[in-house]
Amino acid sequence: MRIALDAMGSDAFPEPEVLGAIQAAREFGWHIILTGNETQLLEALTRAVGPRLPGNITIEHAPERVTSSEQPAFASRQKAKNSIARGLDLVKSGAADAFVTAGNTGAALTNGLLVMKRIAGIRRPALTVTLPVKNGRCIMLDIGANADCKPEYLFQFGIMGAVYAETALGITNPRVGLLSNGEETGKGNELTRAAHHLLTTANLNFIGNIEPKDIFGGAADVVVTDGFTGNVALKVTEAVAGLVGSMIKNAFTSSPLAMMGGLLAKSAIRHASRDLDPNEVGGVPLLGLNGIAIKAHGRSNARAIRSALVAAATAVQNNMIAELQKRIAAAGNPINQPAAPT
Amino acid sequence: MRIALDAMGSDAFPEPEVLGAIQAAREFGWHIILTGNETQLLEALTRAVGPRLPGNITIEHAPERVTSSEQPAFASRQKAKNSIARGLDLVKSGAADAFVTAGNTGAALTNGLLVMKRIAGIRRPALTVTLPVKNGRCIMLDIGANADCKPEYLFQFGIMGAVYAETALGITNPRVGLLSNGEETGKGNELTRAAHHLLTTANLNFIGNIEPKDIFGGAADVVVTDGFTGNVALKVTEAVAGLVGSMIKNAFTSSPLAMMGGLLAKSAIRHASRDLDPNEVGGVPLLGLNGIAIKAHGRSNARAIRSALVAAATAVQNNMIAELQKRIAAAGNPINQPAAPT
Repeated sequence: MRIALDAMGSDAFPEPEVLGAIQAAREFGWHIILTGNETQLLEALTRAVGPRLPGNITIEHAPERVTSSEQPAFASRQKAKNSIARGLDLVKSGAADAFVTAGNTGAALTNGLLVMKRIAGIRRPALTVTLPVKNGRCIMLDIGANADCKPEYLFQFGIMGAVYAETALGITNPRVGLLSNGEETGKGNELTRAAHHLLTTANLNFIGNIEPKDIFGGAADVVVTDGFTGNVALKVTEAVAGLVGSMIKNAFTSSPLAMMGGLLAKSAIRHASRDLDPNEVGGVPLLGLNGIAIKAHGRSNARAIRSALVAAATAVQNNMIAELQKRIAAAGNPINQPAAPT
Repeated sequence: MRIALDAMGSDAFPEPEVLGAIQAAREFGWHIILTGNETQLLEALTRAVGPRLPGNITIEHAPERVTSSEQPAFASRQKAKNSIARGLDLVKSGAADAFVTAGNTGAALTNGLLVMKRIAGIRRPALTVTLPVKNGRCIMLDIGANADCKPEYLFQFGIMGAVYAETALGITNPRVGLLSNGEETGKGNELTRAAHHLLTTANLNFIGNIEPKDIFGGAADVVVTDGFTGNVALKVTEAVAGLVGSMIKNAFTSSPLAMMGGLLAKSAIRHASRDLDPNEVGGVPLLGLNGIAIKAHGRSNARAIRSALVAAATAVQNNMIAELQKRIAAAGNPINQPAAPT
């Protein structure tokens, strides 16, 4: 297993990447190829393990870095020798089996499309997120790659999400739901009503429309939506969790009794809030690219980088790309399917 | 002040309505006209205050009731003599100044359109919600009346929301934001990019695109969105708040120490969760109808019904409908405005 890791991506780069790579290299014996500024990376590696570097960690120099705030398409053109592009090149050339980055999501997708291209038949790639839900996690896609979607994109998102859930998360026969404003088949907007019809024709465990309360109740493994709605839903999730958290924090400082209560319950509450923390999930794939590219959170620590490397390795071991190619080809072009009854 | 109140609307009808009406009638001296089953309402009134009924509470008999689960358009046709339609008729005929219901939202809107019609020039009516945000509340519309919107509907939602904020909530020069997946002007989908342009031409304190974290941070007084996205955003808000709440609750039972902490902090936490409770807000208007119709939450208690009656009276006192008529006429037809630059 050879995984290329953008070592200049996370907010605290390169420490989380270097430490996460060392953990995974030691624990699993994988070959980790760090991409980024060679001098900086050698320094960070030496700080971490001393002068005797592990034999299964190597560095591929990339002189440029795309920051998290840069406009992806522009930065990707201006900085052709960035650490993301270098890592993707390694996969493209066969020197690595998969790529992981905690950097600029848009730049990862833009470079990914340039370097890896799309899987044959895929209309649009999708960004994915892992949402904390009751008793587990579920994945949602698209969460921002495509603000305007056509029904056939959503149809393919369903297939891509299911294949990812099967091959990378080990979920058998994943339940695929379509995010909507009501459970009934007729609910939704023009886009989701058309997508609903297409998804019923797919070879999927399609459970139909699903509302937010059922998503967070754990009723689906994969939630399909367009990139605008998905992005808003994700950001509302983060904002409300933050607001509730700060209200609870304020509640604990509102009286001496409450403060004492807060102190006693501190570790239990920290445990609960960790369940809601995206850092606890290693990474999510850029689905639709013709190669495995995993995006870790910008706030990743070493543990999160290690988890992202595990996710990448799992996708490699379970032939995620071959399975995607097969399933997308088998599904055919959904716009050639019979139209929805009117 | 004469307010028609659907006394058969709330989940626990007619008690919350009858008790809320008694509170408002006593406190403010308003005339409250209860619509619904006369026998049931007389019994409930007698249970509450004995045989000497307040002179400023009267009953208008309506033999039928639309349940909260009924399909609105069908139920409104089948049950023409329902308590919602009766209340709306009273406003239409001039016998009441405003109408309040805690019943089926869709039926309120359907009957409202049939009885009150739209304000001249209004393309689509909108449903509104009051969201709890940092240090206050903000209103969001549309949250479900129109799953598919055109840019000009969103333009009018901005005007309607601002007039409601000014006349019913007393907010001077309300900040109007457009829900989007990024703050920059170019962000959004086709619908929001076109609506953004129209809103800049409106006579509004338009603050541009707004993301969920800024909404919950209190950056806007009015948030404009289409009914599909707004409905999903609202339902995600409710679901995440519920999930976080139950995680906190679980945290407090995870160890004896945490349980003791939870007991000590109980009242503070109850206080915080009340800040997130939609019941604490009295009601929201069905905006765009040519008359004041306020929708209270189905789970309303007497206090919430009283608040909804106060909201209705405030809108009457501040001439909300006249102001809406004036502002919509002044704004003209936005599709005749110059097109967005390409």
